[in-house]
Amino acid sequence: MQARTNRQVLLVKRPQGIPQPEHFALVTEPAPSPGPDQILVRNRYLSVDPAQRGWANDEGNYSAPVPLDMPMRALAVGEVIESNAPGFKAGEFLYGWFGWQTYCVAAPDAVLRRVDPSALPLSANLSLLGINGLTAYLAFHGLGDPKQGEHVLVSTAAGSVGSFVGQLASIAGCRAVGLTSSAEKAALARTRYGYQGMINYRETKDIAAAIREACPQGNDIYFDNTGGAIADAAIRSMRVRGRIIQCGTAANASWTPVPTGPRPEREVLTKRLRWSGFVVLDHVAEYDTAADRLTRLALESKIVYDEEILSGLEHAPGAIARLYRGENYGKLIIAMD
Amino acid sequence: MQARTNRQVLLVKRPQGIPQPEHFALVTEPAPSPGPDQILVRNRYLSVDPAQRGWANDEGNYSAPVPLDMPMRALAVGEVIESNAPGFKAGEFLYGWFGWQTYCVAAPDAVLRRVDPSALPLSANLSLLGINGLTAYLAFHGLGDPKQGEHVLVSTAAGSVGSFVGQLASIAGCRAVGLTSSAEKAALARTRYGYQGMINYRETKDIAAAIREACPQGNDIYFDNTGGAIADAAIRSMRVRGRIIQCGTAANASWTPVPTGPRPEREVLTKRLRWSGFVVLDHVAEYDTAADRLTRLALESKIVYDEEILSGLEHAPGAIARLYRGENYGKLIIAMD
Repeated sequence: MQARTNRQVLLVKRPQGIPQPEHFALVTEPAPSPGPDQILVRNRYLSVDPAQRGWANDEGNYSAPVPLDMPMRALAVGEVIESNAPGFKAGEFLYGWFGWQTYCVAAPDAVLRRVDPSALPLSANLSLLGINGLTAYLAFHGLGDPKQGEHVLVSTAAGSVGSFVGQLASIAGCRAVGLTSSAEKAALARTRYGYQGMINYRETKDIAAAIREACPQGNDIYFDNTGGAIADAAIRSMRVRGRIIQCGTAANASWTPVPTGPRPEREVLTKRLRWSGFVVLDHVAEYDTAADRLTRLALESKIVYDEEILSGLEHAPGAIARLYRGENYGKLIIAMD
Repeated sequence: MQARTNRQVLLVKRPQGIPQPEHFALVTEPAPSPGPDQILVRNRYLSVDPAQRGWANDEGNYSAPVPLDMPMRALAVGEVIESNAPGFKAGEFLYGWFGWQTYCVAAPDAVLRRVDPSALPLSANLSLLGINGLTAYLAFHGLGDPKQGEHVLVSTAAGSVGSFVGQLASIAGCRAVGLTSSAEKAALARTRYGYQGMINYRETKDIAAAIREACPQGNDIYFDNTGGAIADAAIRSMRVRGRIIQCGTAANASWTPVPTGPRPEREVLTKRLRWSGFVVLDHVAEYDTAADRLTRLALESKIVYDEEILSGLEHAPGAIARLYRGENYGKLIIAMD
């Protein structure tokens, strides 16, 4: 039996804030063998996600921090090479918690979804059909409760989640306005992602005034990936009985100490808002239904998905910081050699 | 026909923040006569409510400000003296928008609920069966979604709403802890209002530590009447999938400029909170059902209600400030001579 080489990206230093290349080390070791009730997966594509910041940190986030000197926690799509687990067989493709590494020995509970490699390109299982598309679909429909003709505002509108929210809003008959960090991204969001209006917040001195101008009737839904000053202005644009979906807080680089901002409680009260937090990992039971719906929309050319694929594991250590610098277009993915 | 004298409390100056006696004037004029489709109501009891601060101010609140030189907007319970409106007849008792005055000429849409004067004392229609009890019932059950064994935290626990929330939590099989401003109120809340633990925040240097001690398992529901520093600490005590009910923001004396506080968006996200605003005037269609349920609980001695009744309209101008100073025990009511 041929010796398999496993390349891994280990978390070797605990970051404060956004993980940088120096917090990781690229190592090589022999690939492990699956034990009883385990599978060996060879990763094809690795996911880079904003939530990895929280997993690498030790801030009491919604999942336990990645232990030091262990492979960085990541979603990936890969092929089953060997299986000792009932229900899985070699040659199948899976989406799950396989980490930033070539090979992963996994238990069945690491698998989030079985992947059909013939429906859409394999990488789409990390973008449209991965947690980004699933987040957009399940959060927008599950917490946003969109109704035809409603007004939707989205932060990071050209990002890996926001690019789907604009399209889903448009499909639902809503008018979507987005915020993004460059004129190029704004143009992309208008032409490809369903947005009728865009605000480049880096070029805007007064975000509140820009939102008032772009959303003269206010907003029924605010899909928030950032928190911070954009959210402060957005919450003040809400209409009565508006819904705020908190999907991320990327604008705040650190939560120690907790940053301050204008108090929202009077807006929540007087506008009767409903402000809800959404964590896609709570919704595994709904993934297949959402992925089927998104696949159908893609096959009918009603939804597009953009990916920026970096080829080679050596791009992984700098990839989270790249995400937070806002340099990527669409979903950032690492392709394995 | 005998001339009826109408005593009125007019709003004569626009307050910044909490209305004080000098913002009002007590005047006397002949009582008006009802026109077509109107009724003449003689008020028996007048309500004093925290929301009157917002009605007297001009801060773009959830209802239009009271015009200057007009009677202060208020709920009241009164008797129909004359009726030109179909469906209403002299001798009936009503709960509605009759203002701080002896007599009110009202259209039918000013009436919130018909009152049964034989079920409970008439004043109870401003406390247990008024917007305070209705707020507690409809907000706690409608937005709180309480489940047996859950943990509930309530700000202003001995207040006109909080005193019912503790009892409703207890009836629902929840463990309730409250915050209040004196040792006497804390004792009252423990002995009469269903609270298993109480925090006197005026005697507490570290509210967050006091909440952690009183609620070692965290909270599933936070019923917030205050906002401000208490809410900052309370939100950080929430358990996963907790519900925050925003019923008031009394801790913030002014919203111009907007006060700042620690940002909540990370708590909303990581705990998957649902933070909702509740305005009882949205729920008129549910009042009769809620009032019937609360009446039954009172007749079965399962719920108590405390009122502080000030006798005479001359107490009205200082009553809102008294409420915000936290001097009253239970619902503050003005009895008409």
